[in-house]
Amino acid sequence: MDLKSLFTEITLQPSNFELNTSVDCVIFTIQDETLKALLTRFANKIGWMLPGGFIAKYENSDSAAKRILQERTGIDNIYMQQFKIFSDPDRFSFEELFNISDIKKNKHKLPKLPERVFSIGYFALVNYEQTKVTGGMYKEESNWLDIKNLPQLAFDHNEIISEAAKALRKEIHFKPIGYNLLPEKFTMPELQKLYEIILDRKLDRSSFQRKMLNWDIYERQKERKEGVAHKRPFLYKFDLTKYKQASERGVNFGI
Amino acid sequence: MDLKSLFTEITLQPSNFELNTSVDCVIFTIQDETLKALLTRFANKIGWMLPGGFIAKYENSDSAAKRILQERTGIDNIYMQQFKIFSDPDRFSFEELFNISDIKKNKHKLPKLPERVFSIGYFALVNYEQTKVTGGMYKEESNWLDIKNLPQLAFDHNEIISEAAKALRKEIHFKPIGYNLLPEKFTMPELQKLYEIILDRKLDRSSFQRKMLNWDIYERQKERKEGVAHKRPFLYKFDLTKYKQASERGVNFGI
Repeated sequence: MDLKSLFTEITLQPSNFELNTSVDCVIFTIQDETLKALLTRFANKIGWMLPGGFIAKYENSDSAAKRILQERTGIDNIYMQQFKIFSDPDRFSFEELFNISDIKKNKHKLPKLPERVFSIGYFALVNYEQTKVTGGMYKEESNWLDIKNLPQLAFDHNEIISEAAKALRKEIHFKPIGYNLLPEKFTMPELQKLYEIILDRKLDRSSFQRKMLNWDIYERQKERKEGVAHKRPFLYKFDLTKYKQASERGVNFGI
Repeated sequence: MDLKSLFTEITLQPSNFELNTSVDCVIFTIQDETLKALLTRFANKIGWMLPGGFIAKYENSDSAAKRILQERTGIDNIYMQQFKIFSDPDRFSFEELFNISDIKKNKHKLPKLPERVFSIGYFALVNYEQTKVTGGMYKEESNWLDIKNLPQLAFDHNEIISEAAKALRKEIHFKPIGYNLLPEKFTMPELQKLYEIILDRKLDRSSFQRKMLNWDIYERQKERKEGVAHKRPFLYKFDLTKYKQASERGVNFGI
């Protein structure tokens, strides 16, 4: 199936989809100490875009996000979080996506398409090695792009990624991260590096460690990290029970 | 204008509105040491509901939320924040809102109405005395109801309020509150009371004060509170410059 099939699918059976409401998935990962997002590209002029699609009549937006991410990238079974709806009247255009002037020339019969498409943004942070991207059912290409050096993406997708990054940066002050992103045993400097990559700034070593240890979700190990030039830093493990509790109730609710 | 006029307005001119996407506004206030939300009620069977309405074709959801809140309650000029979209296929029903079986009996001509209406939730926290609720353009009644003792509201509005309260409770760990909710000079126990009402739980006095003072947005005054039985607590004022900076960048970004 290619882009033309997608067009046929969604427009010739408009009764199956809410053509005025889509979801767009911002899947973040860390690779080469860089925060990246997963983008897809059809073989057309529109360029890179987020994996997204229309909500089917029978499903809510959470289910749509899961289904669409799976269909478009092969990624399955990850928890994504809704962060914002994008609603500008001119944010999206069917004309642009499907190159409708060409389609018109080919005498395709066009159904009535909505003038505005709302899009619900979802985000997730995944482990690069453990996330299997197999490519999409519409034969689109996928790639992880550095969010600090993005090209001009389709529609408002640069803005969606920028808002998703804000949401992620806010979220990591509440919910612990690192499990699945770090080795089983890790040092505080390694954990700090993870936060620095996501927050895109240097952090103060001692206040970072104080805050992290206050959260009481890490278990200090007896052994220290070997093979490090000067001092050998302590190794930590996540206390999974506490980690899960903290993920649910938030770690900053210490007021 | 009453509910019938609203029906006529939105359905006989469907081209003016996105009938598949509404906004619902959860306006919180504190009155009698209780967290309350503003509800409205039409003269029909459907009961209390949030001030909400459909997005007009020309506006984005932020503008719609402002316009609709003003039209439905008279409240003007407050900053509301988008927190979630509600998307269950059966969350809303035009039949239920407008009692369409009656309308059909009266031989009203019905336009095609969407089966599902998505709703974008917005919330705000306002000062009870300073918020002028004048009532709505559709002659609906308004009232502040205790969110812990709500009746069964229309549609999924109990869930929307519950999600809005979660969003508010999360937000106050990031953004300072209190300006406009407290007198110009206030004590730490008064500030703590505010947080306790919103969080709906008791807080530890000394860790609360330590955290608050760490935020460095309060100016301790020379005078102390008079007329208090035992010790006279210090009075504080907001340092408005720092308060505004902290509102923008968040107060917990101290990792």
